[in-house]
Amino acid sequence: MRHLMSPLDFSREELEQLMDLAEDIKNHPDSYSEKCHGKKLATCFYEPSTRTRLSFEAAMLNLGGSVLGFSSADSSSAAKGESVSDTIRVISSYADICAMRHPKEGAPLVASQRSLIPVINAGDGGHQHPTQTLTDLFTIRSLRGEIKDLTIGLCGDLKFGRTVHSLINALVRYPGIKFVLISPEELKVPEYIREDVLEKNGYEYKEVDSLDDVMGELDILYMTRVQKERFFNEEDYIRLKDFFILTPEKMKLAKENMMVLHPLPRVNEISVDVDDDPRAMYFTQAKYGVFIRMALILTLLELV
Amino acid sequence: MRHLMSPLDFSREELEQLMDLAEDIKNHPDSYSEKCHGKKLATCFYEPSTRTRLSFEAAMLNLGGSVLGFSSADSSSAAKGESVSDTIRVISSYADICAMRHPKEGAPLVASQRSLIPVINAGDGGHQHPTQTLTDLFTIRSLRGEIKDLTIGLCGDLKFGRTVHSLINALVRYPGIKFVLISPEELKVPEYIREDVLEKNGYEYKEVDSLDDVMGELDILYMTRVQKERFFNEEDYIRLKDFFILTPEKMKLAKENMMVLHPLPRVNEISVDVDDDPRAMYFTQAKYGVFIRMALILTLLELV
Amino acid sequence: MRHLMSPLDFSREELEQLMDLAEDIKNHPDSYSEKCHGKKLATCFYEPSTRTRLSFEAAMLNLGGSVLGFSSADSSSAAKGESVSDTIRVISSYADICAMRHPKEGAPLVASQRSLIPVINAGDGGHQHPTQTLTDLFTIRSLRGEIKDLTIGLCGDLKFGRTVHSLINALVRYPGIKFVLISPEELKVPEYIREDVLEKNGYEYKEVDSLDDVMGELDILYMTRVQKERFFNEEDYIRLKDFFILTPEKMKLAKENMMVLHPLPRVNEISVDVDDDPRAMYFTQAKYGVFIRMALILTLLELV
Repeated sequence: MRHLMSPLDFSREELEQLMDLAEDIKNHPDSYSEKCHGKKLATCFYEPSTRTRLSFEAAMLNLGGSVLGFSSADSSSAAKGESVSDTIRVISSYADICAMRHPKEGAPLVASQRSLIPVINAGDGGHQHPTQTLTDLFTIRSLRGEIKDLTIGLCGDLKFGRTVHSLINALVRYPGIKFVLISPEELKVPEYIREDVLEKNGYEYKEVDSLDDVMGELDILYMTRVQKERFFNEEDYIRLKDFFILTPEKMKLAKENMMVLHPLPRVNEISVDVDDDPRAMYFTQAKYGVFIRMALILTLLELV
Repeated sequence: MRHLMSPLDFSREELEQLMDLAEDIKNHPDSYSEKCHGKKLATCFYEPSTRTRLSFEAAMLNLGGSVLGFSSADSSSAAKGESVSDTIRVISSYADICAMRHPKEGAPLVASQRSLIPVINAGDGGHQHPTQTLTDLFTIRSLRGEIKDLTIGLCGDLKFGRTVHSLINALVRYPGIKFVLISPEELKVPEYIREDVLEKNGYEYKEVDSLDDVMGELDILYMTRVQKERFFNEEDYIRLKDFFILTPEKMKLAKENMMVLHPLPRVNEISVDVDDDPRAMYFTQAKYGVFIRMALILTLLELV
Repeated sequence: MRHLMSPLDFSREELEQLMDLAEDIKNHPDSYSEKCHGKKLATCFYEPSTRTRLSFEAAMLNLGGSVLGFSSADSSSAAKGESVSDTIRVISSYADICAMRHPKEGAPLVASQRSLIPVINAGDGGHQHPTQTLTDLFTIRSLRGEIKDLTIGLCGDLKFGRTVHSLINALVRYPGIKFVLISPEELKVPEYIREDVLEKNGYEYKEVDSLDDVMGELDILYMTRVQKERFFNEEDYIRLKDFFILTPEKMKLAKENMMVLHPLPRVNEISVDVDDDPRAMYFTQAKYGVFIRMALILTLLELV
C-alpha cells in the first residue's frame, strides 16, 4: 500500500504515468465515471480548506465514488484528545482512501504509519501540500506539452510560501528550467532552497525585486500571495506590495504565449482585469487540479 | 446559461412550466431518480441555513446526482479573503450547478456574472430568497389546482419579512388575488409594497391588526415569525404578539378548506396544537419545496 | 414504523436477528451494496461526534444509499429556536431515516414521536447511546460465537460512563455473565445499577480497585476513559489513573484468548504498545460498528 506525503514520493517515471493518466481523464472523463463505484474517500480536514477539500470531493464523485469526513477540528474527535493515529485506524474501517489536512507538520505522515488505507497529505502546516505541486506540474505539462526548457518566474512571498518551495523542489527534476525569483528583499527564498536545491542541482536562477524587469523573459509566471502579516509594519507592506501586483500593464510586457499560474485563493496580487487575458491560466489550473487528484486516487487505490 | 436570482426571473409562462414539472415529479418521483446521474450540486452557504441547504441536497440526491459544498463561511476560503467571484470560478470546475446563500445582498448576483455554471440564489441577506417563493407558489397551485381568485392573508412581521415581500411581488402576476395584511402597526408592509406593487398593479388589499377579525374570509393564511428583536421594548412585544399567534380557537373561525402556510422555522407564532388540523399545510409546504427545487435544478441544467 | 431509542427496545430474539444480519453483512458485504439505492440517511448531530456520525455515514454509503445532514447545532435551525419536533417533521420530507445526536436527554425520543421516518438515537447526553451498545454486543458475539458464560471486566469511570451502564443493562439478558467492576472508589457504578440491574436479575459481580488483581480471570476487558474533570483535584487524578491504565505488562497477566474492547476515542487509558497485541480488539470493534449500523438501517427501513 502506498501513501502520498511529498511530491517527491513519486519517481519521475511514476510522475509521468500519473500525469499521463490525468491527461487521459481530462480528455475522456466519461471513461472514468464509474471507476470508483462503491469506494469511499474520507476527507479528514483538521483545519478548513474549502478549495482543497472540494477538489478532492469533486475528484472522487467524478469517479463514481462517495465521500464522508469532517471539515474542521471542532467537529472531530480531536477535540476529545484522540491522536491522529487512532483516528486513521478507525477511518480505515469507514473509507477506502483518506485525504488529510492538518495544521501540524508531519501529522499525515504519522497517520499513514498506522493506516490500513492510503493516506494523501492534503497539506500539513507550512510543510508540504503535494497535490498542489502535482496540480502545478500537470498544468504546465498539459498546457505546454512537456516540462522542459522553460523560464519560470516565481513571484511574491518566496520565504514562507510552502507552495513555491515545493514546486522548486519538484521542478529541479526536469531539464532546462531557469528560475527567476521575484520578491521583496524581506521575502526572498530561504538559503537552503538556493544552495541545497537550486545550486546543488546546477540550476540557473536569478533574484530580482520587481516584476517589470523580467516579464519579457518568462514562459511561466507563478504568482503567490504576499500576506500582510509577513511584514514588520504596515508601511513596508504598502510600499512593497505594488511591485508584485500583476496588472494588465505588466501583462503587456510579457510574451504572447506566457502563462500565469496561481495556487489560489488570490487576494489582490493579480488584478481582476487580468482574468480575461488568455494567458491567465489560474482558473484552468484549479480545474486541472481535479484531474490530477482523480489520477492520484485511482493510482493509490490500484484501480489503474 | 441561466441563473435564478429573483422569483421574477421567470416569466409567468416559464413559471407554469416549472410548476408543471414539479407536479409531475411529485406524482412520479421514480421517473426522475436518475436524471442527474453524474451531476454535482455545490451548496455554497456563507451563512448557515440547514433547512434550505438540506432541501437542495435532498432535491439533488432524489435526482440521482451528488452534492459537495460548505455550510458556513468559517470553513470556506472566504476567511482567506477570496471574493465570491473567484470562488464561483473555481466551483465551476467542481460542480455542474451551485446554490449560494450569502449574508450580503447581491453576492449571488455578482457570483453569477463570473460563473460558468448556473447559480441559484438560496437567500442573500434581507433581499431575496427565490426558492422559498417558488415553494410558496407551487404549494398553493398544487393544493388549490390554480393560483386564482384567492383571498390571501399574510400575518406577522410584514415590514422586515423578506419572504412576504417576495411572495406579494410574485402573486401580483395572478388574477383575482385579494390581500389581507395582518400585522401590528409597527410591522406593516413598507410603503413601496403598498404603492408600487399592490396599488400600481390594481390589486385589492386591506390592512388589519388582528387575526380574529379576518379569519373567516381567508382562503390562505401565510404566517411568519414576529421576531422579538424587531420591537423597541419587551412590553410591546408581549402586548402585541398574542394577536398574531395562531391557535386552535382562531382556527375555528376559518373556512373549512382554508390552508395555513409558513416558511418555517416557526418559533411560537403557530401553536403546536394546530399541527394536527388538516388545514395546517406548512410541513407539506416544506415537502413541496423539494419538488420545486428538483424541477429548478432540471430546468437550469437543461435536462428537461 | 419503528425507532431505536434504547438498546432494550429490541427483544432478545429481535436482537439475535439483527446480529445475524450484521454477521451476514460482515461476511458478504457485496450482497448488500445496493440495498439502499435511492434511500437517504439524515445525520442530525446537534453536538459533534465525528466517529459516530462517520460510522452511520459509512454504513449508509456501504448500502448504496446517500447521506445529508448537519454536524453541529451552530449550522442548524436550532439556532433560530426551532424545536426538534419541527425539525424532524421537515427532515421527514428530506430523508428516509434519521440518526440524531443531541446534548439533551430525551430529545431523540421527542423527535421520534413526531417523525414520519425511523429515528435512531445516536446519543442523547449522558442518557443512551444504543448503537454503541449494539456494537459492543455484536463484537462480543461475532468474536466469541455467542454471548454466554463470560467473565467481563468493566474498567474506568463506571459512575458517569453512559456506555458502561448501557452495556450492563444489555448483558443481563444473557446467561452466565459474571461482572468484574474495576474502578477507583470515587467512580464506582451507581447504586441503581448494582441493586436494580445486577442484583435484581441475580447476576454475579464484584468490585475491585485495581486491574492487576483480576486480569487473569477476565474473558473480556471493556476499558473506558477516566476523564480528568470527574475528579475533585489533580492529585487524586494523578494518584489513581495509573491503576486503570492498560499496559503490555498488565496484558501478560491476562488469558490468551481474552479480548480488550473500548468504545473509543481513547486518550491514554490504553497504552499504544497494547495495540499490536492480538487480543486488542478495539479497532475491530469500530469496524464492526459499521456492520451493525448497516443491519439496523436495513431493519428499520424494513428492507430485510
